[in-house]
Amino acid sequence: MQLGSNRYGKAEVRVVRVARGAGPDGGDLIKDWNVSTLLSGDLADSHLTGDNAKVLPTDSQKNKVYALAKELGCVQPEPFARELASFFTSSQEPITRARISIDECAWIPIGATGYSFARSGELLRTTTVIQDEARGTSVISGIKDLVVMNTTASEFWGYPKDPYTTLPETKNRILATEVNASWRFRPEAIAGTDWGAAFVVARQTVLDTFAGTYTYSLQQMLYAIGGAVLSAVPEVCEVRLALPNKHHFAVDLSPFGLENDREVYVAADRPYGLIEGTVLADDAPDPGLAWT
Amino acid sequence: MQLGSNRYGKAEVRVVRVARGAGPDGGDLIKDWNVSTLLSGDLADSHLTGDNAKVLPTDSQKNKVYALAKELGCVQPEPFARELASFFTSSQEPITRARISIDECAWIPIGATGYSFARSGELLRTTTVIQDEARGTSVISGIKDLVVMNTTASEFWGYPKDPYTTLPETKNRILATEVNASWRFRPEAIAGTDWGAAFVVARQTVLDTFAGTYTYSLQQMLYAIGGAVLSAVPEVCEVRLALPNKHHFAVDLSPFGLENDREVYVAADRPYGLIEGTVLADDAPDPGLAWT
Amino acid sequence: MQLGSNRYGKAEVRVVRVARGAGPDGGDLIKDWNVSTLLSGDLADSHLTGDNAKVLPTDSQKNKVYALAKELGCVQPEPFARELASFFTSSQEPITRARISIDECAWIPIGATGYSFARSGELLRTTTVIQDEARGTSVISGIKDLVVMNTTASEFWGYPKDPYTTLPETKNRILATEVNASWRFRPEAIAGTDWGAAFVVARQTVLDTFAGTYTYSLQQMLYAIGGAVLSAVPEVCEVRLALPNKHHFAVDLSPFGLENDREVYVAADRPYGLIEGTVLADDAPDPGLAWT
Amino acid sequence: MQLGSNRYGKAEVRVVRVARGAGPDGGDLIKDWNVSTLLSGDLADSHLTGDNAKVLPTDSQKNKVYALAKELGCVQPEPFARELASFFTSSQEPITRARISIDECAWIPIGATGYSFARSGELLRTTTVIQDEARGTSVISGIKDLVVMNTTASEFWGYPKDPYTTLPETKNRILATEVNASWRFRPEAIAGTDWGAAFVVARQTVLDTFAGTYTYSLQQMLYAIGGAVLSAVPEVCEVRLALPNKHHFAVDLSPFGLENDREVYVAADRPYGLIEGTVLADDAPDPGLAWT
Repeated sequence: MQLGSNRYGKAEVRVVRVARGAGPDGGDLIKDWNVSTLLSGDLADSHLTGDNAKVLPTDSQKNKVYALAKELGCVQPEPFARELASFFTSSQEPITRARISIDECAWIPIGATGYSFARSGELLRTTTVIQDEARGTSVISGIKDLVVMNTTASEFWGYPKDPYTTLPETKNRILATEVNASWRFRPEAIAGTDWGAAFVVARQTVLDTFAGTYTYSLQQMLYAIGGAVLSAVPEVCEVRLALPNKHHFAVDLSPFGLENDREVYVAADRPYGLIEGTVLADDAPDPGLAWT
Repeated sequence: MQLGSNRYGKAEVRVVRVARGAGPDGGDLIKDWNVSTLLSGDLADSHLTGDNAKVLPTDSQKNKVYALAKELGCVQPEPFARELASFFTSSQEPITRARISIDECAWIPIGATGYSFARSGELLRTTTVIQDEARGTSVISGIKDLVVMNTTASEFWGYPKDPYTTLPETKNRILATEVNASWRFRPEAIAGTDWGAAFVVARQTVLDTFAGTYTYSLQQMLYAIGGAVLSAVPEVCEVRLALPNKHHFAVDLSPFGLENDREVYVAADRPYGLIEGTVLADDAPDPGLAWT
Repeated sequence: MQLGSNRYGKAEVRVVRVARGAGPDGGDLIKDWNVSTLLSGDLADSHLTGDNAKVLPTDSQKNKVYALAKELGCVQPEPFARELASFFTSSQEPITRARISIDECAWIPIGATGYSFARSGELLRTTTVIQDEARGTSVISGIKDLVVMNTTASEFWGYPKDPYTTLPETKNRILATEVNASWRFRPEAIAGTDWGAAFVVARQTVLDTFAGTYTYSLQQMLYAIGGAVLSAVPEVCEVRLALPNKHHFAVDLSPFGLENDREVYVAADRPYGLIEGTVLADDAPDPGLAWT
Repeated sequence: MQLGSNRYGKAEVRVVRVARGAGPDGGDLIKDWNVSTLLSGDLADSHLTGDNAKVLPTDSQKNKVYALAKELGCVQPEPFARELASFFTSSQEPITRARISIDECAWIPIGATGYSFARSGELLRTTTVIQDEARGTSVISGIKDLVVMNTTASEFWGYPKDPYTTLPETKNRILATEVNASWRFRPEAIAGTDWGAAFVVARQTVLDTFAGTYTYSLQQMLYAIGGAVLSAVPEVCEVRLALPNKHHFAVDLSPFGLENDREVYVAADRPYGLIEGTVLADDAPDPGLAWT
């Protein structure tokens, strides 16, 4: 037998960086992150014999996250992840690849103090950077946990009816989903992208497209969102989406002598539909390691 | 042996009510609720012999939630809970008490469609109504899951040092908590309260007070918030709060030759401090069954 | 306005105690606990002025948990909680009451090493001790998260049919629940109870009673379990149970030309029935503060 | 722009199958599953135009799960998944690939009734079957959520010390992890494997190997477990593992005048080490689509 692909790191390092007085009007900036590292390279010895001479402790990786947060300040998560990845691959000779992922939680200023905030629960901003000595650097950014709903403007009909099909067709349903989207940046754009601006545009594009698209399937919404992000952020060449169909079923109130004209719904937990798909620019380069 | 206090009901009925065209500018209104019922009364038979002649099925209770949502439309959760409680106690002779609790999730309009929304993750609005044939009606409302942070304006010192005390005193720390607050309405105010307005004022008061209070302990913040809600909403006579201290520890970066001047923090999960307390109006009437 | 009842402490202190070589056949013993403390007393100053002279830091409370785990070894959770409560009330003059709660997770030996274990996910063992200077000591123990199912031997019929009742009666259903049970010990038994033995008997009694009881309602099962624990553990004077009805609905397969003779069920998440109740010994003394 | 790879299905269909009287001694058998389907094929129209003529509703997929559970009875999850995958690819012309995954929860008989059970929380048994018209069938099985601990027999030292390394070396630590393991079956073994027996052997091998392996790194444990499963189940050609290092840190009790000789530990939540790796038979065939 043999050792196949492998990697290791520190998962879910929770770091909050405060840049005091660095915000607009002299208030504080904060970055609230959940950082995970995964390193690959010449790590066979540790698996085969327990010789750890090439295994930088995950505790050291965690320490570097905190030290880098001090050094870089309240930066965008993408350059932070790039710098962190570079550090591991350049400083540890056996390490040839680093994968850094960050989930960022936003905080909204409250009051006029400059130092008071409420956590936004709207969504998490995400990024994953992979830096490989031989194959270069990839950057994927995205959002997750963004729950959206159209109370109308969605139909579902014209589907095949097999012996197990009992679902009635509908010309007017609620469409609700949790947007989990990741967009891959073109390699040549990595050096020059304004990461903060790209995120703002992409997020707004997701919201606008969801609101503005009349759909006959959640697949159609997926393609619309993916395409819109591609168009809005030219540095992006590929968008991957996973959209759970958060079913809202109209309740049958007829046993109680009541008509339910799309007014009362049960929000179901499980099961849920799940739509996964990719939208690519026609000239999108091969993703290489980006999604690994 | 004997049967003591008991109650039963349907927990976590998920109902989404859409009032089409009823919103500002002709858009939709939505109410997204998680409703739970608990009924008490002459229920010994079911426990002792399995005779269910007095046990309205929890399935029927669920159905009534949906039917009432149809009938009442997008109302505030408090009158909905009152109406639901009244229904059970008035229509089921053995049932002498009903407890209805509702968690409400807010949705924020997106785009200009009038029918598109994003779920707010800021907080949940809560209410618990208890209606008892002999002892009347109580209404408690509140918020939960609201996470707030002051990056400064908090000290903690002057505490007793026992043999297990190693915590250094601090004149400048991050104070972060998750506000779980419930406020009880005066019985005489139940008939006339503007529930929507009361919630808006209470929520804003919590945020403003958190931002505006310089603290020497989280206990002090608890009392400030409770007192401010009492003052801002005169219909309220009692506020109960449970405030976890979401510790943010400054990371010791000195091993890496770096100074950490309140810039880099680890956000800890467990353990956490927990502060629970009550603030009462001087003339607050006895709560009776309100908190049961 | 005024400060009402209040308390504070450290929640969810995770401690794993290993007693090396202390187990049967010279293997290790382990105790895996989640400990929470809540202290009450003369704490108004901290709330009103931020004067912390009477507020033992929650960090110190956490430290004491670890120190006491060293000193006491792998003991039962009940005496640990009592000792911890005593420490706080006796060593901190302003503290007149302590509430200690512990969740214990069991580990099952694997292999023959004596030092290898797999975590049991069957249930959590719980205890809550309250020690009050004026009102004495109470001990409640219990279990939670124990999920059990009878695939038959359960009926539900004879219930009232209101206008919202559509549930068909059944003479043969699946009954499944998650047992959350707490049993209060008689004050006079606290000094002499064999806590480990009491837990073993109570847990087995719950399982045997669930398996051995033919039911017409979940309420009936609640009373049977409560009564059986009372009978099996004479030191116990009161049992409180919260039993969610984990609904298993038979799937209607008739649209597919199939009969479903109690063979295929959907396990529903929400909503669920919830049955709460108390069973008391006829001579049960007043609980005092035990359930607070 | 263009549509890239995509798939859709129903996630988390909760089905409980009871085979009455089919167990040993005439008791019931139960299978408690969480089934997810994902279909791929000629699905561009739905994305591009909302034409659903080739989109079998996810609701129909759910119905088929229940119908098949009726027809097949309490079978192993692997043949169920194969049959379900075959159904979709053979009955829906546009569908060329199906991915079926099942999580199975075990229930332990309680009492002597034959119909009473307690849910085991030890682990979940998993399987993922992919059937592709062009590339054939793959079967992966595994376990997840199995938490294990060695209280000794683990060292960690000899690692590189970079400027961010503060971790002390240790010759004696607790090693705890949550085993998430998946093993791929050789294509030629799929027709003839005794799935139930293979699972029993693999699970026991994981436990025995964890208990029996003295380690200098968690990587070493990963390779040992993977290799042992390969050896114990010859139908398996590849094992992938993700092992979080559930850190147990010895508490420093010296400030309290106590020595902590590997007795008192804090069980940390986050961050945690994460070790991922693959062990392959030397003649393992290419996985093809198996892990997608």
